[in-house]
Amino acid sequence: MLVLITYDVNTEDAAGRKRLRQIAKQCVNYGQRVQCSVFECLLDAAQCKMLQAKLCAIMDPEKDSLRFYYLGNRYDRKIEHFGCKPTYQPEGPLLL
Amino acid sequence: MLVLITYDVNTEDAAGRKRLRQIAKQCVNYGQRVQCSVFECLLDAAQCKMLQAKLCAIMDPEKDSLRFYYLGNRYDRKIEHFGCKPTYQPEGPLLL
Repeated sequence: MLVLITYDVNTEDAAGRKRLRQIAKQCVNYGQRVQCSVFECLLDAAQCKMLQAKLCAIMDPEKDSLRFYYLGNRYDRKIEHFGCKPTYQPEGPLLL
Repeated sequence: MLVLITYDVNTEDAAGRKRLRQIAKQCVNYGQRVQCSVFECLLDAAQCKMLQAKLCAIMDPEKDSLRFYYLGNRYDRKIEHFGCKPTYQPEGPLLL
């Protein structure tokens, strides 16, 4: 199933930026980063529980917000994109 | 239906912050701001088309990314939240 994960963190803070990098690293194992702090992951139920546990261990529950949206298996028509960056690759290869 | 709207913009830039404020102002007419740039809106098909047109007019398509996720009418079990800020109210009343 497609699970949309949105993570809200203060990136003016170095520790916050580090947590975002760590969250992103876990999420991109299962899918893609579509915006700076929005991830689309393909997960089964067991993977989803495991990823939730990992992300909850990384986040600061006093400062950050983490939300999961379960989009099911038929998600093709449930998503529309406008503007730039259909995917977001801050550490992707530099094209010259 | 519930429509999740995620908006990616560079907020280090004053013009970007202004666009985010304008996007937020439109979205909160129909729902709530759950993270800094994530909105959950209750819309019918006509409202959704109208809001899309407004947001596309505000955004900079060369710089910003705007995504819509259609969660349908039975969305209660499709959302899970962890951490702080179940809703995000940057201009909410100051509680002393």
